[in-house]
Amino acid sequence: VNSIDKLTEIFSRFPGIGPRQAKRFVYFLLHRQGVSEELIKAIEDLKHEVSQCDKCLRFFTKNGSPGTLCKICADPSRDGSLLMIVPRDVDLESVEKSGGYRGLYFVLGGSLPILADEPERRIRIRELKERLKAEGQHIKEIILAMNANSEGENTADFLREEIKRAAPHIKTSLLGRGLSTGAELEYADPETLKSALLNRS
Amino acid sequence: VNSIDKLTEIFSRFPGIGPRQAKRFVYFLLHRQGVSEELIKAIEDLKHEVSQCDKCLRFFTKNGSPGTLCKICADPSRDGSLLMIVPRDVDLESVEKSGGYRGLYFVLGGSLPILADEPERRIRIRELKERLKAEGQHIKEIILAMNANSEGENTADFLREEIKRAAPHIKTSLLGRGLSTGAELEYADPETLKSALLNRS
Amino acid sequence: VNSIDKLTEIFSRFPGIGPRQAKRFVYFLLHRQGVSEELIKAIEDLKHEVSQCDKCLRFFTKNGSPGTLCKICADPSRDGSLLMIVPRDVDLESVEKSGGYRGLYFVLGGSLPILADEPERRIRIRELKERLKAEGQHIKEIILAMNANSEGENTADFLREEIKRAAPHIKTSLLGRGLSTGAELEYADPETLKSALLNRS
Amino acid sequence: VNSIDKLTEIFSRFPGIGPRQAKRFVYFLLHRQGVSEELIKAIEDLKHEVSQCDKCLRFFTKNGSPGTLCKICADPSRDGSLLMIVPRDVDLESVEKSGGYRGLYFVLGGSLPILADEPERRIRIRELKERLKAEGQHIKEIILAMNANSEGENTADFLREEIKRAAPHIKTSLLGRGLSTGAELEYADPETLKSALLNRS
Repeated sequence: VNSIDKLTEIFSRFPGIGPRQAKRFVYFLLHRQGVSEELIKAIEDLKHEVSQCDKCLRFFTKNGSPGTLCKICADPSRDGSLLMIVPRDVDLESVEKSGGYRGLYFVLGGSLPILADEPERRIRIRELKERLKAEGQHIKEIILAMNANSEGENTADFLREEIKRAAPHIKTSLLGRGLSTGAELEYADPETLKSALLNRS
Repeated sequence: VNSIDKLTEIFSRFPGIGPRQAKRFVYFLLHRQGVSEELIKAIEDLKHEVSQCDKCLRFFTKNGSPGTLCKICADPSRDGSLLMIVPRDVDLESVEKSGGYRGLYFVLGGSLPILADEPERRIRIRELKERLKAEGQHIKEIILAMNANSEGENTADFLREEIKRAAPHIKTSLLGRGLSTGAELEYADPETLKSALLNRS
Repeated sequence: VNSIDKLTEIFSRFPGIGPRQAKRFVYFLLHRQGVSEELIKAIEDLKHEVSQCDKCLRFFTKNGSPGTLCKICADPSRDGSLLMIVPRDVDLESVEKSGGYRGLYFVLGGSLPILADEPERRIRIRELKERLKAEGQHIKEIILAMNANSEGENTADFLREEIKRAAPHIKTSLLGRGLSTGAELEYADPETLKSALLNRS
Repeated sequence: VNSIDKLTEIFSRFPGIGPRQAKRFVYFLLHRQGVSEELIKAIEDLKHEVSQCDKCLRFFTKNGSPGTLCKICADPSRDGSLLMIVPRDVDLESVEKSGGYRGLYFVLGGSLPILADEPERRIRIRELKERLKAEGQHIKEIILAMNANSEGENTADFLREEIKRAAPHIKTSLLGRGLSTGAELEYADPETLKSALLNRS
């Protein structure tokens, strides 16, 4: 395999990238030697500057500080009695950007398709149980912030059972359903409309 | 104008139909004489069998009954203390299909763009006030069930003011915001996430 | 079935229209009584003013003239030695609009999927043979103007055989392949590129 | 700027990639340490193994051979009297894959928008003239293989003038226009239909 084809193959493993766009990436790099250098440097920096938070398991940039906790987990002003479980790092960022949440997080690392075998290979359920063992006594509520689809519901069901067993005193909750920004009544499904009606204010 | 062009022009006034698809409709009718006959008959039947409900102003099929009220408005088991204002007939059908609502309706006939002149030409605000005058004393809550966009919010703001003036004892409410079915955290906007967090359960 | 549902069902038979848009058409007509009247009148006019041309079998508006031939077939200045077979009326209009053709037409009424049974039920092959019998001696070339896909190629193959048998002196030709307006080399398929290379000028 | 943001910014310069997908690429690399290593190695290999052909200016993998010409330019069986000018490397690959061309190439490095200043900064016009000076006496025809849009036509017009001035004995040609694979008559523009009619065969 020559190096154009090799690099094309690697880019086509990137999320959402097919072979044609991967090839275009390669020519883009061939035409812009400078970008190749920047790209290599940034990937190497990423390796050195980013670590995974010991508590929430998200990736974060260390910025020279020697700590093993991300800024959120290290912030004493966050509400430690509230834990939100999100599927992935980007979901955490999305919630954080909304500005409406002051508790702590746990990044599950994915979600659980219906009838999936070996959940511990797909999501960080072992790590979650360890966290509950270590600091479960401080937690009052866990928000199961999953995507509003069947995989998200299945994951929430699984987590609820596991939490009930591991830390029965903790209340679990789900994000509220209703009309998303931009939603139109005509196209809204019955489930969404029912919740929107219940949650009216 | 010949009749092919004339019919094409009429079809291209239909919602979502451009001149090319309109022309295709005409050739469809030319090839299927039977459909033309059926279509004319169904349009004429529509005129005779459908009337507009005196109370909620939706269109409904009379089915031979001489009444001037639709099935919902004529149903004594519906909760008359609850009124939902929806933009259009299809929105009413959508809510009705969800099965979660047992009150009455009012079809506004549209919504109000921001800074729109002469609201009474765009929405049935006069008709709404008449209804409030006639039976406002029985109504405890009006749900402003608008689309979750800026036009919907503008319409809700306008209606809230008008209702406060016309019937100050009636509480107004909005449909709950949150994650619609299928929504993913990563793509949810801050407003939706904040509401989903507040409405968690 | 009530008349709203009946009309919805008829509109959903229209090409490219699903039940939701069909329903929207019905409410559009309910809100605009005037359009219903216009629509019925235009459909009735269509029936009276449009006939099918005896020669090319396209639909055309008579405009009061008693003839049974469309304007093109009745035009003595068109080149009768050249016949173009097109799948449908809209294709004829498309070629006519291009202004590059001065011969006559035959509208096939469709095209022939691969391995289709009973071609005479799908395309006007009987009518074509009758036309060749009646005036084949004046025709020098038949252009098989089919869509550039496998169904079009299959139809052209079928027609070529039939014409060879019915009128062996007539030459058949295909529309030239090459880059369509807007085509980009990167996305062009090998077949198109080869033809574009052969037809370079 | 932290390294997550920096790498996101670099990926969002890639063709067709917005900030959201760029961020997803970064998390993809964070989760798959192995891919980062492979990626860095492949980019470095690319730099060492790929050079730009001295004649056609395309990028090619050297495969250990010390030559400065790509496989096509070094192939004595290719027809040196025929030169095809293509906008970019991928266009050359597309034509080569079609298997219908046996001449040589020149990669222009882009195309010329209408009214663009300083063409020599956008396309390799200087390099083209040098090539014509060096070996123009062997070339009989130059195929201006541009995309079938206004930018492509503008580029062809510009090149035709430049070639006429630099090497007046060389004939220039354009790729044939006509129906691309998959094209339908109904949607074909007049220009395409006219060419398809002229190029019929």
